[in-house]
Amino acid sequence: MTRRGLLFVLSSPSGAGKTTLARRLLAADDAISMSVSMTTRKPRPGEVDGLDYHFHDQASFKAACERGDLLEWAEVFGNHYGTPKAEVMDALAAGRDVLFDIDWQGAKQLSARAGQDLVRVFILPPSVATLEQRLNKRNQDAADVVAGRMAQSASEISHWDEYDYVIVNHDIEESLATLRTILAAERLKRWRQLGLAAFVRDLLSGL
Amino acid sequence: MTRRGLLFVLSSPSGAGKTTLARRLLAADDAISMSVSMTTRKPRPGEVDGLDYHFHDQASFKAACERGDLLEWAEVFGNHYGTPKAEVMDALAAGRDVLFDIDWQGAKQLSARAGQDLVRVFILPPSVATLEQRLNKRNQDAADVVAGRMAQSASEISHWDEYDYVIVNHDIEESLATLRTILAAERLKRWRQLGLAAFVRDLLSGL
Repeated sequence: MTRRGLLFVLSSPSGAGKTTLARRLLAADDAISMSVSMTTRKPRPGEVDGLDYHFHDQASFKAACERGDLLEWAEVFGNHYGTPKAEVMDALAAGRDVLFDIDWQGAKQLSARAGQDLVRVFILPPSVATLEQRLNKRNQDAADVVAGRMAQSASEISHWDEYDYVIVNHDIEESLATLRTILAAERLKRWRQLGLAAFVRDLLSGL
Repeated sequence: MTRRGLLFVLSSPSGAGKTTLARRLLAADDAISMSVSMTTRKPRPGEVDGLDYHFHDQASFKAACERGDLLEWAEVFGNHYGTPKAEVMDALAAGRDVLFDIDWQGAKQLSARAGQDLVRVFILPPSVATLEQRLNKRNQDAADVVAGRMAQSASEISHWDEYDYVIVNHDIEESLATLRTILAAERLKRWRQLGLAAFVRDLLSGL
């Protein structure tokens, strides 16, 4: 049956396992893909325009933003990142789901603009110890860098209650299965099954 | 983690397979049980008060209704049936889910009174032929009785768009799995995971 796609938003503090979960979900499910962001950051070696990012200069990014062409945008370390609205809307209309790996501010912007198309999941670490361990493993940096990341994690975690679903990530396999369960159920929401109205019309005409 | 239960509402035209699905779901899932209705109908042989129904006379049913003790009620062939609110609310608070096999009018009453605790699923037959076949199998009655049931089915079906989820019941096993997927996902809704607030508080105090 024809289906309207959905925006699947994953947020979490860094170190909670979100990136791994997103990668695993994309590999496991053919009907969902990552949104390609627009950015003013310079391409890194090997990055392909239109595939990894849509690379833009500051002026054209600003213009897109002012035209309302972006579903959400943010500035990170002086570079701008945003989500082109048209691409996402085309995907939804074609029955494809779009995955977003964004923070609470991005999720908030999407909530204001995508409404019922949005499904928001917050991933929590099972404990502070695990979070600390994962952050330390990732950053061979100085202790104050890790401390800064912990503070940022705390800020992100404090927005857990702005999400539809919450998963405590004790185990990657279990959490992946949970994400897939949520996705499977959300795809059955009445308003996403676009073929239903015609199906019911046929049923009723036969009764 | 402590969880708030949910009201799982199944509606469908008769002959769509709802009763079988409800029975199978109850057998497969320990955390959900049927709500015990209050009724003015006389007990049938073998029926136990408080287990099959809460049997009441007209006066005490009416009094319960006027006190606002019922989540929903209806009159069927001169008998009254209703759902006692206190029992259901106790179950939800204890983290147990309650299954409702009710029509669109009952679902509408519940929607007004249970709000966010409600998950509504509408079951559709795969075709008019299947519906006709199932109604004929069930009723060894005269053709006009079956015709009356078909008309009633059409009326029920026309309310399909007042539900959160819709399942076209092509196959009982598949539909049962779908119901269980919906239930699993809905149990993960943020506001049902009552332990999360305390869990997050502990996480943040450690950061």
